[in-house]
Amino acid sequence: MPNQKLFNVAVVGATGAVGEQIIRLLAARNFPIQELKLLSSARSAGKKLSFKGHEITIQEATPDSFEGVDIALFSAGGDVSRLLVPEAVKRGTVCIDNTSAFRMDPETPLVVPEVNIDKISEHNGVIANPNCSTIQMVQALKPLYDRYGISRIIVSTYQAVSGAGASAINEMLRQSQEALAGNVVEPQILPVGALPKKHQIAFNAIPQIDKFVDNGFTYEEMKMINETKKIMDDESLQVTATCVRIPVVYGHSESVYVELKQDFDIEEVKSLLADSPGIILQDNPAEQLYPLATEAAGKLETFVGRIRRDLSNPRALNLWIVSDNLLKGAAWNAVQIAEYIAIEQN
Amino acid sequence: MPNQKLFNVAVVGATGAVGEQIIRLLAARNFPIQELKLLSSARSAGKKLSFKGHEITIQEATPDSFEGVDIALFSAGGDVSRLLVPEAVKRGTVCIDNTSAFRMDPETPLVVPEVNIDKISEHNGVIANPNCSTIQMVQALKPLYDRYGISRIIVSTYQAVSGAGASAINEMLRQSQEALAGNVVEPQILPVGALPKKHQIAFNAIPQIDKFVDNGFTYEEMKMINETKKIMDDESLQVTATCVRIPVVYGHSESVYVELKQDFDIEEVKSLLADSPGIILQDNPAEQLYPLATEAAGKLETFVGRIRRDLSNPRALNLWIVSDNLLKGAAWNAVQIAEYIAIEQN
Repeated sequence: MPNQKLFNVAVVGATGAVGEQIIRLLAARNFPIQELKLLSSARSAGKKLSFKGHEITIQEATPDSFEGVDIALFSAGGDVSRLLVPEAVKRGTVCIDNTSAFRMDPETPLVVPEVNIDKISEHNGVIANPNCSTIQMVQALKPLYDRYGISRIIVSTYQAVSGAGASAINEMLRQSQEALAGNVVEPQILPVGALPKKHQIAFNAIPQIDKFVDNGFTYEEMKMINETKKIMDDESLQVTATCVRIPVVYGHSESVYVELKQDFDIEEVKSLLADSPGIILQDNPAEQLYPLATEAAGKLETFVGRIRRDLSNPRALNLWIVSDNLLKGAAWNAVQIAEYIAIEQN
Repeated sequence: MPNQKLFNVAVVGATGAVGEQIIRLLAARNFPIQELKLLSSARSAGKKLSFKGHEITIQEATPDSFEGVDIALFSAGGDVSRLLVPEAVKRGTVCIDNTSAFRMDPETPLVVPEVNIDKISEHNGVIANPNCSTIQMVQALKPLYDRYGISRIIVSTYQAVSGAGASAINEMLRQSQEALAGNVVEPQILPVGALPKKHQIAFNAIPQIDKFVDNGFTYEEMKMINETKKIMDDESLQVTATCVRIPVVYGHSESVYVELKQDFDIEEVKSLLADSPGIILQDNPAEQLYPLATEAAGKLETFVGRIRRDLSNPRALNLWIVSDNLLKGAAWNAVQIAEYIAIEQN
C-alpha cells in the first residue's frame, strides 16, 4: 500500500501466553508498525524480545508508556487494564482489551470481527475482546442466527489449560509426568482465580473455570451467557453454559445444542458454515472427520462439525466447535480488531 | 444367613477390564457362590485367576460351559453374548448381559437397580445391563423424575478411556508419554469400533464413541437416548446426547441440562439426591466441592454436583454427574442385579 500510515503499537502483557502470540501475529501479518513498545510488569521489564529481527527491550507499563501510542493491545489481567486502559485512552491511544474489565461496560463495544465489526466504530477509546470460549461459539453461530434466528443455546465446554496461562500448561504437563510415574500428584494452580484449594487436572475433568457466582454458575459460564447476548445484540437469547477444564494444552472444544426460530435444511446449515469467513467445516462421519483440539492448535480458524438435527426437537441442532483459544480465542481476534482500526485510520 | 442358597456362577469375559472388576466385587460382596466358573475366549483359556485365595483356571466359553450354572455375568462383547446367552438360557442359566446385544430387545429388562428393580422379575432368562454413560445419568435423574417429572434431557459426556477396554488405557498412557517426550504420537486404538482411521486421545477430546449412525449421531449417543427412555419407561422423554472421549483413565463425567415438568426448589433437589441410595451429593461451590473423575474412580457410588437452576428456563436445572464407568457403569450394576436374583431365589 503506497503511503500507508504506520502506527505506534504497544503490547501490554508482552511476556504472557497471549501477548507472545499477539507479537508473533503482528509480525506474521506485517502489521503497519512505526514503533512497537513491549510493556509488562516491573518483574519482566528489562528482558528483550525479538520482533522481525530486531531486539526490543520490555519496559514496565506506566501511564506515561502510552504517550504517542496509537494502538495498545492489553492482555495482562483485569487489574492492569482497569488501571492503565483509562490512562492510555486519556493519551489518545485506542485500546484493544483482552481482559474482562470492560467487556460488559455499555459504552465499550465487544467485538468478534466476523460477527459485529459494525460496532467497532462506536468505541470511546476501548474495544473489548470477548472471552475465548465465547468467541468461537458466536463466530460459528452467527451465520445460523442471521439466516434462521436463534432462541436458545446450551453449551458444555472442554477447555484447554492454556486458557489459564503458561503456568497452568506447565502444571498439567508436570502432573501428567507425576501420574504416569505412579507418583502422588500435587495440584498447585487450577482452578485459577479460585480459593486456595486446588484440583488435579492431569487425567481429570474440572467443572470449574474462574470463581463461583452466587447463582451457582462460575464467572466463566456467566461470561459465555452475558457476552453472547451482548455480541449478538439480543437480550432475548436464552443461553446456558457449563464450563469444564480438561487435560488439553491448546484448543477449546464445545458441545453446542441450539434451537432455531425457523425450519432449516441440514445441508444448507453446512453450506452456510462452510462459506463463512474464518470457519472451516469439518463434518464427514463416513471419514471420521470432525474438529479436534490437537488439529486446531496453531490455526487461526474456528472448526465446526458433528452437525446434526436434534432427534427430539426438529428445530434444534447439535454442533461441535473447536478453535485455538490463544489465537481466535484471544490474540488473533485482538489483532484482527487492530487491523480494522488501522484500515479505518488509513 | 442360615441355610443360604449357594449359586453356581459364571463370569464370561473374565480377563477383560469389566470381568476383572466383577470377580473382585463377587469376592468383596461375599456373593453366595457354590462354584465360580471363569470363562473366556480360547486365547485366554488355561490362565489362572485367584478368587478368595483359590486359583481358578479359565476355561473357554462354549455352550456346554453353562450346564449347571445358575447365574452368568457376560462382558465379552456383543458377538459372544449373541452366540452364548441363548445357549446359557436354554440350559436354565439366568444371564446378566453387560453388552448392547439384548438391551433394546422388548422382552429383555434393562435394569439399574435404583431405578427400575421392579422390571427384574419380568426376565425370560436375560437381564441387560445398560451402557455405562446411561446408568449414572438415569440413576441421578430418577429421584427428580419421580418427584417433578422430566420432559427433556440434554447431555454432553466426558468419558474415560477405560470404557474402551484395557488396550485403550494403555494407548492413552503410551501416547501421553510420547507427547510429553516431544515425540510423534501414533494413534492405534481409538475410536474403537470405527473405521481403520484413528485419532490421538492424549491431550485431546474425541467427539466420537462407537460408530456413526445414518442420522449423524454415534451409537454411543443413540444408546444414551434409547436406553434412557426404556429404563425410565417413558417414550415421550426427549433426550439429546453428545458423547466425547477425553484423556481420563477411570470415571465418566456428564454435563446434564434437564427440564422438569413442575416447579422445584433447588434445596429440595439437593436433599432428594442426597437421600437417594447409591448417590453422593458433592455440591458446595464455597468449598470448591463438586464431583471429579479422579475421586470417583474406584468407588461404587454416583456423584452429583454443580446443581443450579437454569437462568433462562426456571423449570430447568444443570448438573454434573460422575461415576466410575467400570463399577456402577458396568461391573457393580451387574453384581447388584446378581444380588437381587440371589435374594429372589432364596
